[in-house]
Formats: sequence, C-alpha cells, structure tokens
Amino acid sequence: MDNKKINIRKKFEKFSEHWSPKIIAELNDYQFKVAKIKGHFVWHKHKETDEVFIVIKGKMQLEFREETIKLNEGEMYVVPKGKDHRPFADEECYIMLIEPRGIVNTGEVVNDLTRDNDVWI
Amino acid sequence: MDNKKINIRKKFEKFSEHWSPKIIAELNDYQFKVAKIKGHFVWHKHKETDEVFIVIKGKMQLEFREETIKLNEGEMYVVPKGKDHRPFADEECYIMLIEPRGIVNTGEVVNDLTRDNDVWI
Repeated sequence: MDNKKINIRKKFEKFSEHWSPKIIAELNDYQFKVAKIKGHFVWHKHKETDEVFIVIKGKMQLEFREETIKLNEGEMYVVPKGKDHRPFADEECYIMLIEPRGIVNTGEVVNDLTRDNDVWI
Repeated sequence: MDNKKINIRKKFEKFSEHWSPKIIAELNDYQFKVAKIKGHFVWHKHKETDEVFIVIKGKMQLEFREETIKLNEGEMYVVPKGKDHRPFADEECYIMLIEPRGIVNTGEVVNDLTRDNDVWI
C-alpha cells in the first residue's frame, strides 16, 4: 500500500507543460490536482463549486474583477463558487488544486486552454 | 478579501496542544484542518468518508491493521473510508487534514482524545 503514498513535489518532475492540471489523488468525489503555471490564464468561473489553490513552489496571483490577491509559497486560497477569476504567474509556479471530480479547468469557457479533466499522474 | 488568504504554516503558531484539529478553510462542505501530533492516537475509522493526511512539518506514521505507512514532510495519504487506522508521531509533527464538515477526530470511538469538531483558527 506504500505505493499510495504521494510525494506532492515529486509529481511536478513528471511533466513540464503549463496550465494542464494532473490528478494525483481522490478523496471521495473530490480530486487533488497539480499544475505548473506561467503567464495569464483565461477569465472564468465554476458555477457549481468552490476551488482551492495551494502554492507549492513560487508565487502566483489570483485576479478578481475588483482586486488581485498575491499568493506565496505555502499559502492557500478558496475561490468562491461562481466568482470570476484569472490566475497569473510572472515566473513559473507550482500549484495544487482541490475541487470536485469532473471540473473543467476553464470553467464555462472553452478555448485552447481547455484541458481533459481526467488525466492522472 | 486579502484576509481570506491562508498561510498554512503560520496557523501552527496559534496553538500548541496535540491531537486537536483546527479548521482553517472550507471548500463547499469539505474542511481543511491543521493539527499538531505527537505519540500514539487511538485506533479508529470513519465509516462515511475517506480522509486525507498531508505532512506539513516533520514525519508521522499511519498504522493500519496489516502494515504501517511512513510519511515524510510534503507527502500525503488518502485513508480509505471505513479503514481502521492509528496515526503516530515519534517527534512532534504538523499535519493538514481534509475531510467533509462534521467529521469527529476519533471516528466511531469516543474517549478522552475526542475533540469538538467545529473549532476554527
């Protein structure tokens, strides 16, 4: 069962692309995903759920319509259900996302940043 | 809204007692809790849910009936629903737990380690 032990940082050694969340664990019907991010993402929201961001390495920003939140390594933020947001990272940043199974990364938007939401790593 | 930013490690500066999980965030009806642990906890299970352990600082063990899993800093583990387990830490260890709202720390057991399950920090 030792193979079920998950080293969060080591998961980032297994891929290089940006804005492409990979599932690393499931808790009931919730999923833990890791992603490397750099630059601007797209404005979007998740009508059906809150979404947790945790910064594993580096720093990022969460833009909201009325303000921008700066997150450093070891900090987390809960983006409320239905709230427009746009993640941004000046330099490459490693993050962990927690949200229900089946959530699409670009929310209600479908564009060239939309990724398959069922990729395990 | 910057006050909603959560620094996970700093939360541990706010309390000292062992085996007493404090809520730091909610994601829909799920909660993120931090706890300091040392020594043996009690054997217990959560019939209704999986439970995630993430080691923030130090190291711990998760004893199961058939084996023991050693977890180091930055590692996580999903204890499956209904599975007997007993957390243990030789030296003081800081952990984050993720599970649905309302889960009692000692599961089906009620003893002197049972804590109020609605304490925020």
